[in-house]
Amino acid sequence: MLQGILQHIDSPSDIRQLTQVELTQLTKELRAFIIDIVATKEGHLGASLGVVELTIALHYVFNTPYDNLIWDVGHQAYGHKILTGRRDVFHTNRQLNGISGFPNREESKYDTFGTGHSSTSISAILGMAIASHLKGQTDKRHIAVIGDASIASGMAFEGLNHAGDTNPNILIVLNDNAIGIDPSVGALKKYLTNVKKGTAKDENIFECLNFNYTGPIDGHDLPLLIKELVRLKSIPGPKLLHLITTKGKGLKKAEENQVVYHAPGKFDSTTGDLLPKPYRDEPPKYQDVFGHTIVELAMLNPRIVGITPAMPTGSSLKYMMDRIPERAFDVGIAEQHAVTMAAGMAAEGMVPFCNIYSTFLQRAYDQVIHDVALQNLPVIFCLDRAGIVGQDGATHHGLFDIAQLRCIPNLIIFAPMNEMELRDIMYTAQLGLDHPIAIRYPRGRGVILDWKQKFSKIPIGKAQELQKGTEIAVLSIGHIGNMVSELLHEINNEHLIGHINMRFVKPLDRKMLLNVFNEYSNIITIEDGCSTGGFGSAILEFANEINSRKPISIIGVPDTFLEHGTVEELHSIAQIDKITLRKQINNILNKD
Amino acid sequence: MLQGILQHIDSPSDIRQLTQVELTQLTKELRAFIIDIVATKEGHLGASLGVVELTIALHYVFNTPYDNLIWDVGHQAYGHKILTGRRDVFHTNRQLNGISGFPNREESKYDTFGTGHSSTSISAILGMAIASHLKGQTDKRHIAVIGDASIASGMAFEGLNHAGDTNPNILIVLNDNAIGIDPSVGALKKYLTNVKKGTAKDENIFECLNFNYTGPIDGHDLPLLIKELVRLKSIPGPKLLHLITTKGKGLKKAEENQVVYHAPGKFDSTTGDLLPKPYRDEPPKYQDVFGHTIVELAMLNPRIVGITPAMPTGSSLKYMMDRIPERAFDVGIAEQHAVTMAAGMAAEGMVPFCNIYSTFLQRAYDQVIHDVALQNLPVIFCLDRAGIVGQDGATHHGLFDIAQLRCIPNLIIFAPMNEMELRDIMYTAQLGLDHPIAIRYPRGRGVILDWKQKFSKIPIGKAQELQKGTEIAVLSIGHIGNMVSELLHEINNEHLIGHINMRFVKPLDRKMLLNVFNEYSNIITIEDGCSTGGFGSAILEFANEINSRKPISIIGVPDTFLEHGTVEELHSIAQIDKITLRKQINNILNKD
Repeated sequence: MLQGILQHIDSPSDIRQLTQVELTQLTKELRAFIIDIVATKEGHLGASLGVVELTIALHYVFNTPYDNLIWDVGHQAYGHKILTGRRDVFHTNRQLNGISGFPNREESKYDTFGTGHSSTSISAILGMAIASHLKGQTDKRHIAVIGDASIASGMAFEGLNHAGDTNPNILIVLNDNAIGIDPSVGALKKYLTNVKKGTAKDENIFECLNFNYTGPIDGHDLPLLIKELVRLKSIPGPKLLHLITTKGKGLKKAEENQVVYHAPGKFDSTTGDLLPKPYRDEPPKYQDVFGHTIVELAMLNPRIVGITPAMPTGSSLKYMMDRIPERAFDVGIAEQHAVTMAAGMAAEGMVPFCNIYSTFLQRAYDQVIHDVALQNLPVIFCLDRAGIVGQDGATHHGLFDIAQLRCIPNLIIFAPMNEMELRDIMYTAQLGLDHPIAIRYPRGRGVILDWKQKFSKIPIGKAQELQKGTEIAVLSIGHIGNMVSELLHEINNEHLIGHINMRFVKPLDRKMLLNVFNEYSNIITIEDGCSTGGFGSAILEFANEINSRKPISIIGVPDTFLEHGTVEELHSIAQIDKITLRKQINNILNKD
Repeated sequence: MLQGILQHIDSPSDIRQLTQVELTQLTKELRAFIIDIVATKEGHLGASLGVVELTIALHYVFNTPYDNLIWDVGHQAYGHKILTGRRDVFHTNRQLNGISGFPNREESKYDTFGTGHSSTSISAILGMAIASHLKGQTDKRHIAVIGDASIASGMAFEGLNHAGDTNPNILIVLNDNAIGIDPSVGALKKYLTNVKKGTAKDENIFECLNFNYTGPIDGHDLPLLIKELVRLKSIPGPKLLHLITTKGKGLKKAEENQVVYHAPGKFDSTTGDLLPKPYRDEPPKYQDVFGHTIVELAMLNPRIVGITPAMPTGSSLKYMMDRIPERAFDVGIAEQHAVTMAAGMAAEGMVPFCNIYSTFLQRAYDQVIHDVALQNLPVIFCLDRAGIVGQDGATHHGLFDIAQLRCIPNLIIFAPMNEMELRDIMYTAQLGLDHPIAIRYPRGRGVILDWKQKFSKIPIGKAQELQKGTEIAVLSIGHIGNMVSELLHEINNEHLIGHINMRFVKPLDRKMLLNVFNEYSNIITIEDGCSTGGFGSAILEFANEINSRKPISIIGVPDTFLEHGTVEELHSIAQIDKITLRKQINNILNKD
């Protein structure tokens, strides 16, 4: 499908040779190229389509890679990748050993700063600009592209607040499409809407912060974009260019349904129609178990509230937002605020479910400690996407939560092995706990078709013995326990191997563990999380406390950042798979 | 010293009976009372003096504790405590078993939300306001008092951005004194200064965020304050009242030198003169070793930059800010920004030292993982106030850093045992490491009088054997190793007890540890940090890896939040003291 121009663009210097007409042709080809590949290979579609003109204009006007360009979040960097030498490998996007779905310093000198979590670009570009200044590189430019959802996050404000007080040569391009993954929210978003409509008052919020403000202008008008960028290039100090763009631009369906086409899966590249997935009667996604269950519980318990920082669709809190909008809150990309607001609600006797992806809870770590756990407020954290997440890769795996949360006093940590356990712990938690609780569950589907069963209470700190044995006890935490069950069924050594679904990382079921350490001669722990400081470590601490000398094998993700691939591929690479467990078991049995 | 009125104020309802003249008299008495007690008992002086009128006005106008009042950071809450039933115990402030230096829910129903870390109040009060709304408590008011340094932090912006998009009945009182602990910085601060001078343009940044804005008004004009609060009480929706106050108001010296009188130590309550400390030839504070050493190194290495989020005095980065201002940055209360800006600088080849208190690094946990460690950028983190910090108590102890950082791939973790080790690791790090490094050191003084010695390089991952033994190996990390040395000297059992200064939590010195596990029959680990998931846990993981069956005793802070007291008292309560170590040693020796 390569036509005239794109096939000759091997680096931005090729773009700089093009005429205005050719540049316009390039926008068409680039857009078509992105649509074509993402239609079959999947990935983040809408954001990249929205910045096709901007991407070309930036590389045309600025001297990349000498000039530093950072794409906030990185969902929108496909065009950038294609134009900076990665056209021919773009079809490997997000695949094992393929290119990353996000900017990545190791992948290209054009990716000056890795992104994935939002709102980091202003701080990073300011650091680079100050560095250039100190190094005397006065001709070097520094550009960050950030969306309207991301700029509303606290971290971005911190960057703006500092940048406006310095005099670095930086340009912030505000890519305002009124949507993140879900539609943007918040007072700033409303303000930006007023700016667009011309109904805002005279002074500009960015000018208040000492930025030179330009806009709003049409981000799909390539000649205008180039003209403005050329003009801004020569203006010193902090500058903000406010662009209005359309997420999904150029694919009608994607423009019309921006939430779905953020990352639509496979679709028809001509019509945009989503390809129907073959119908399978399969277990639900954990996120949907959460989403439906919180609605069910909230109908019964008027004190339940639901909170998500900008992930109504991803967390499935949208079901509650639709059904009980007055008690379900999308607070925007504001994890810190989400957690402390939940603490405030709990202090007033509400029952807040705060749903945050495991990897994003890192943004609110202090608030979990300082505002929730220290005050022992019974906030219910639901940590979706815990463990290996697959194609999103290193920035998005939820591997550190057990290790990072385990040291926090007062906090209960639970991981459901299946849909019913997730439902039941949600049920149990909303009845009223004496402590906050973190419930971690993975991306993807559970194991139970008929999952919507009657609730029953889960005793806090109680594990569940799934299989009795004599030689080896496998202690599993969470969903990965299903793999253990399967394997034990396959190897059919029931009399030798026991399996305990630990359920709680904290508090540990000490009584169960005492039995285990008495009755078995070998212990294996397994978790979908980092092995350093994780669940296995908790078992080591327990064993040490009781002066056990029994051998313990810890199966967990090694101390390294995992790249992207399918969940199965990465489980295998991280050696938290069936093969590894089987090997461990065989090693032990053969030794005896 | 109690005069007519204060002695009769046992709760805010007593304030509500007073006449205007009596209220004014109360401001004088309250101010004098705070000065008198803090002069001898020490504590945070300036902030509380600055809000005497506001404190009285709030409790006069609002129906506390039914109405919710939150004091951001809490440095300024002394007057509040004195007027809400804690007058007669105020002299126990910050002492073991005395009242907390910060608002504390367990202490009083008037302390609706515990604070200590900054910028949490808007999120918390919004959560409470939404809860009240859902509960149908339409008459309930919600007030947060926040300073101009704290409102510039990202978390506060997240709260404002959400609050402005909802319609809760909340009042944010912006206590603008142009200073946090050190003078405020940033574009917002400059903007607020323009507002005060009347040089800002028409529209107001808070109005952009949909707040009903009032101000600026004189925060020491009690009748005006009362009038405005009464007026605002009946206005629905989100409101912001901008007060101009003087930190240290009412004590001339404190007004003149606001940084010193933030927490001045003992002083003469009449003149304000600081009481001279008896001269002792004592080792330096660790913070000063950092502060002087970074200047020394930066003079030699032009790529060194220093970054502090609002702690130039506390971290002693102020020495570099004075000497090499172009390379030393106070970014305000913006830990997230500080870390990612450092990453941006490192990406451009600079050598950033990012100094953050251990407890505040929790605010930038995601940035350490996502922006620094994942990209393996050699940022040098200096974590001051690691371990037990004393009187600031539960919100400020730096107990979780080892556990929280240990799971992060690529990160080196070091703890100096003394001043020279801090200097040498700083020297080593700026020569260029292949990884980021976190250097944790405690509040307080080191142990070496003649500490400014020639630099030497510390090999990464190498421990140091301080004493050879046969039976017991004590593995210590950081400054607490000095206590171990002292004790071993006292008990004079050199032939039995070895002592290894581990220096690195990560990477562990595996060679040294292999020897230790070979040569000794018992291991004791000791750390000034949480024992769950901490350094001792790392040793357990190592021992398990090598299949050692030797007994290991872990001495660390138990899994609970520690309150306030002197460092010595708290070391004893946490059982990380000499008595505990001696007991452990005796137990082992007597058993053998």
